[in-house]
Amino acid sequence: MFVKVVNPNTTWSMTATIEACARAVAGPGTRVEAVSPSMGPPSIESHYDESLAVPGILTEIAKGEREGADGYVIACFGDPGLDAAREVASGPVVGIAEAAMHTASMLGRSFSVVTTLARTTGRAWELAHRYGMRDACRGVHACDLPVLALDNDPDARKIVTEACLDALYADGSDVIVLGCAGMADLCAQISAEIGVPVVDGVAAATLTVQSMVTMGLATGKRGEFAPPPPKRYSGLLEGFTTEG
Amino acid sequence: MFVKVVNPNTTWSMTATIEACARAVAGPGTRVEAVSPSMGPPSIESHYDESLAVPGILTEIAKGEREGADGYVIACFGDPGLDAAREVASGPVVGIAEAAMHTASMLGRSFSVVTTLARTTGRAWELAHRYGMRDACRGVHACDLPVLALDNDPDARKIVTEACLDALYADGSDVIVLGCAGMADLCAQISAEIGVPVVDGVAAATLTVQSMVTMGLATGKRGEFAPPPPKRYSGLLEGFTTEG
Amino acid sequence: MFVKVVNPNTTWSMTATIEACARAVAGPGTRVEAVSPSMGPPSIESHYDESLAVPGILTEIAKGEREGADGYVIACFGDPGLDAAREVASGPVVGIAEAAMHTASMLGRSFSVVTTLARTTGRAWELAHRYGMRDACRGVHACDLPVLALDNDPDARKIVTEACLDALYADGSDVIVLGCAGMADLCAQISAEIGVPVVDGVAAATLTVQSMVTMGLATGKRGEFAPPPPKRYSGLLEGFTTEG
Amino acid sequence: MFVKVVNPNTTWSMTATIEACARAVAGPGTRVEAVSPSMGPPSIESHYDESLAVPGILTEIAKGEREGADGYVIACFGDPGLDAAREVASGPVVGIAEAAMHTASMLGRSFSVVTTLARTTGRAWELAHRYGMRDACRGVHACDLPVLALDNDPDARKIVTEACLDALYADGSDVIVLGCAGMADLCAQISAEIGVPVVDGVAAATLTVQSMVTMGLATGKRGEFAPPPPKRYSGLLEGFTTEG
Amino acid sequence: MFVKVVNPNTTWSMTATIEACARAVAGPGTRVEAVSPSMGPPSIESHYDESLAVPGILTEIAKGEREGADGYVIACFGDPGLDAAREVASGPVVGIAEAAMHTASMLGRSFSVVTTLARTTGRAWELAHRYGMRDACRGVHACDLPVLALDNDPDARKIVTEACLDALYADGSDVIVLGCAGMADLCAQISAEIGVPVVDGVAAATLTVQSMVTMGLATGKRGEFAPPPPKRYSGLLEGFTTEG
Amino acid sequence: MFVKVVNPNTTWSMTATIEACARAVAGPGTRVEAVSPSMGPPSIESHYDESLAVPGILTEIAKGEREGADGYVIACFGDPGLDAAREVASGPVVGIAEAAMHTASMLGRSFSVVTTLARTTGRAWELAHRYGMRDACRGVHACDLPVLALDNDPDARKIVTEACLDALYADGSDVIVLGCAGMADLCAQISAEIGVPVVDGVAAATLTVQSMVTMGLATGKRGEFAPPPPKRYSGLLEGFTTEG
Repeated sequence: MFVKVVNPNTTWSMTATIEACARAVAGPGTRVEAVSPSMGPPSIESHYDESLAVPGILTEIAKGEREGADGYVIACFGDPGLDAAREVASGPVVGIAEAAMHTASMLGRSFSVVTTLARTTGRAWELAHRYGMRDACRGVHACDLPVLALDNDPDARKIVTEACLDALYADGSDVIVLGCAGMADLCAQISAEIGVPVVDGVAAATLTVQSMVTMGLATGKRGEFAPPPPKRYSGLLEGFTTEG
Repeated sequence: MFVKVVNPNTTWSMTATIEACARAVAGPGTRVEAVSPSMGPPSIESHYDESLAVPGILTEIAKGEREGADGYVIACFGDPGLDAAREVASGPVVGIAEAAMHTASMLGRSFSVVTTLARTTGRAWELAHRYGMRDACRGVHACDLPVLALDNDPDARKIVTEACLDALYADGSDVIVLGCAGMADLCAQISAEIGVPVVDGVAAATLTVQSMVTMGLATGKRGEFAPPPPKRYSGLLEGFTTEG
Repeated sequence: MFVKVVNPNTTWSMTATIEACARAVAGPGTRVEAVSPSMGPPSIESHYDESLAVPGILTEIAKGEREGADGYVIACFGDPGLDAAREVASGPVVGIAEAAMHTASMLGRSFSVVTTLARTTGRAWELAHRYGMRDACRGVHACDLPVLALDNDPDARKIVTEACLDALYADGSDVIVLGCAGMADLCAQISAEIGVPVVDGVAAATLTVQSMVTMGLATGKRGEFAPPPPKRYSGLLEGFTTEG
Repeated sequence: MFVKVVNPNTTWSMTATIEACARAVAGPGTRVEAVSPSMGPPSIESHYDESLAVPGILTEIAKGEREGADGYVIACFGDPGLDAAREVASGPVVGIAEAAMHTASMLGRSFSVVTTLARTTGRAWELAHRYGMRDACRGVHACDLPVLALDNDPDARKIVTEACLDALYADGSDVIVLGCAGMADLCAQISAEIGVPVVDGVAAATLTVQSMVTMGLATGKRGEFAPPPPKRYSGLLEGFTTEG
Repeated sequence: MFVKVVNPNTTWSMTATIEACARAVAGPGTRVEAVSPSMGPPSIESHYDESLAVPGILTEIAKGEREGADGYVIACFGDPGLDAAREVASGPVVGIAEAAMHTASMLGRSFSVVTTLARTTGRAWELAHRYGMRDACRGVHACDLPVLALDNDPDARKIVTEACLDALYADGSDVIVLGCAGMADLCAQISAEIGVPVVDGVAAATLTVQSMVTMGLATGKRGEFAPPPPKRYSGLLEGFTTEG
Repeated sequence: MFVKVVNPNTTWSMTATIEACARAVAGPGTRVEAVSPSMGPPSIESHYDESLAVPGILTEIAKGEREGADGYVIACFGDPGLDAAREVASGPVVGIAEAAMHTASMLGRSFSVVTTLARTTGRAWELAHRYGMRDACRGVHACDLPVLALDNDPDARKIVTEACLDALYADGSDVIVLGCAGMADLCAQISAEIGVPVVDGVAAATLTVQSMVTMGLATGKRGEFAPPPPKRYSGLLEGFTTEG
């Protein structure tokens, strides 16, 4: 089985971390490869960044179809391009916010999300609503670190851990969800330190996709998520095509 | 006052119709200009199309800022790129689904949406939820016409009108919302024929933006919708920039 | 176009302020007139006051129909009598809470309401639910000023401004909605002082009605909002009639 | 204990039926009196009627306070004036829609409402939402009888019974709620005929009030439902006063 | 009329208190008997306890059917076994959380629950959602007393009263709901001390059942709550039978 | 890794089928064992059956703790005893309805449940609400087969397949969820026949547990799901103990 993990930003050091975290949990029969698109933002910290990440994600999905990928992970907590990717892919596509929230909701009554910049909390709440987690999600908390500082800032783990503790105290929740793919490698240590389950979406989504493929499940294709109608795109996007 | 209407698809004949419908309702002091981006899909009939339309929309918003636009309409019923556009624009940005649904909800207890292809009804429902219209919206009905057939098919108006009548009968609603910018010019005739208020989002959004500008209102900028953090985009998108 | 603004209380000095604020935003072709009914409470600060304001409002709507009004604003933040007025009027009728909340929801992800007495916050929340704003509305805050003190108390603007700042801090919202028609004239100054969009429902409702009339839209009349069945009312209300 | 039942319309024959139905269930220590106000509509079949019924209801509540009433029933399925009555009364006030829906929700997972005219179904749904019954209420069905025909039309019971059966079939619900005080005397026979529990709000509300008084419970008065601030009303309503 | 009150735990001193509180409000024609099952937990403070209480409850319901009980109260705030009991009983069955929440919601816009241990608040919220009280219930607060300490701890009333005051302050609600059957006898005194209505579920449920029986109402039996299909249970439960 | 699957009914032939379906998807390092409790109902077709199944489930969980189980599946679509099991188990516990619904919601916008007897649809809806699937779940459909007929009735697969087709047609959903553990072995064939993804909860829950254990995740234990307070149970249940 081949699971392709798309890191929607173009920072390959982060892609390498994501790949390591995904591989660490994948089963023995599962090949995991993580990539960054050749176009897009170096990190995703706004709706603008997210929008500009999507064409690159879709290119990687289309490439994955040719490469024989069995399923896909979109490894950014805003789950950008998820619906479009589901139209294009024949196998399942899972976002890391989606997988993390569903997983967390089965580990207790409630969870709190800890994410990077405050401006992204609105999107996390929107996804919580979209995925039916309006009641299970008790809070979305920013630790005010830019995405790439997770890699560079020596205090990153300490800052995120403190934000997790603050979130638990404020929300009285059972579980923490890490709200950024760049936090994937902090997951085990933070969990050990704070003593509650901490869910990393990269691992959760990788295993969700692996499970779906194992069960022979893929996106339902009889309606909204059928392959997009064939048409030609113009301008910078003229390389994009669909075959129906 | 200058209101820029962005038709997210690249079909300029549809852009011309949209511009005419927007101008028909704008006040004497309001200049309305409609454009299509130089990149993107000829029509928007899938999540994939919608995703690929967004970079072009954002380019037009950025251009509008330099041109001195006071506000923007995004003239596709999926309201693509709305949140990102709000980060980039200093004035208000309104989507046609958003404006139509809010308007319709003040004309009765409930409305029904009539749209083009069945595969787009999921997105319309998602927006209804996002805008608080889960209860007011009683149904989203497809008339199974492709977007561009609205222009070409001589039976288009008849087909849409019949779908409106079916929707009213099935849902018992008070108001019809037309679920595609390409239906804007059919609005008055259909309303006359079926005897209930029919809301066209192009007109509704144009007047909503005009009203906001008149009141001195624009998107709140102290949090989620602040200008996106400055960064460099790579690949095909390297022309995109943000200045923070 | 003639838009009639009904201030449901009988304090004409407040009616004059409301009229000025409505006229300040109305288009050149729009005649705006504000009135108070000849019966009812001097201010509306309880469900009891609101109930007793409604017969007077309906009298003014009926009079408006004879005067040729094209649409109506109900200028009290409890939106009293809105459904009944929609049955009676042939043109659109919009409440100021309704218009303000819908407008605010298109200027960001969330808003906070700042109103007068704490006892009225329950009604504001009820309307937020009714209009689909349960998620967009993050808080309803009282500044503990009686309605008429907005006019008399020299500190009124300062008190309301501070309540707005407190609301923003507590709720983390993008937009402020002023929760009383008597605050209409404070809107611009407060917005300037606090640096976020502040929505006054009087202006918002006036422009919403103007937009609806421009688009040829009125309340749907095929069901719940058809003219009330004709009958005779007794006692003090024997002057009220309906013609079906 | 003295429970005062206010029939908000002015049709005393209906008031007599309501009184009989309330008395039939009241305990031995409970005195029940039903009244119609001296002002208002002969039946309530629109928002307009409902609005004009409220001042009369409030007069009867105020009179009840002087008469020593321990609690009140508002016997119209639109629950008109309920919040205002709660401000004025020192004891509990319960509407018949409210009592019927709460009761029905404890007799199964779901109920259906059968009411008179189709135009009143919107109000019934609004109340279902307000009382938390959005999920428990599976349908609101009109039998297309005017309110007063319940008394006059010899086929009334047959028509209502058939509407009940249709509702059960369409909704798959466990319980029927009768959606008009004028149906109170049909309750037992319909229940016998259709074989499911049928809830009459007049009986349910009378017993709910009796239970509250027995437990020493009344409306909470520390906030929204405190007595209305004292003020003078003008015009036809100048007889109304509040004492704070 | 015979109302059987089942205290799901096996602590008979608590059963005696519950019986006294139920009898104190029952009408002259109502015989009330409270029992504890012969099997189960001495107090209910976890989902585990609650699960193990249910077989005993169902035994008591089955016994009640043979004894001629007209209706049942389940006197634990988790409402354990309610749906199963409704299948088995021919008369109505009401839980104390259910009755208390419905009652409280008619005494104001909102209520707060004060319960025993923090670990039980999740269940109380789950019931609030189930009963449509998600909006009316503003908070569930633990006073950190074990259930049986309500009887033994001389400071119990003081501790619960303080938790009620804290809840009112935090939630701004109109009414308090006592979240444990063991608090039934504290109700009147706490209400007197804090000056807001305080609802005890034991009294509320007893009167709700009495009212239902008076109206001839019982659980709807045509679907989900029909008698359970007959089958034989094995192991420790082989004494359980159903007759269809 | 050892995953223990508890079939809450006592029909071992069904347990064998469940075990085969779980083993068919488990990874090479995962040992799966399915058991039936020694006490309880032969099939679960009512709330009564479900309640009587729970003590046996909890016994098996407790036994599993001693056996070193890493996680548990509760293999009945009512997810009986799930919260109690989470208190008792140190590893994760997942119900098959829960796992199936979460999985299905990531394979499209919506799903339909096809279950056995009509009387169980209420419970399925209750779980859909509890898990945040109120919008994603578009219908719960009964095929009117008793649970054990799934094994015996030679037409079982045909009947279930037809119910799936009817559900898809009625609901317009993307995915089917099989609403009974006894349907697990029909999953692949039905999916092949109807051409949409069909989710079997036994497989889904087994893989969800396996994934959680792989990630080192278990139920959060700092609040509601901490081990139950130690106490002695009486009567038939005296063998039950908790150690805190």
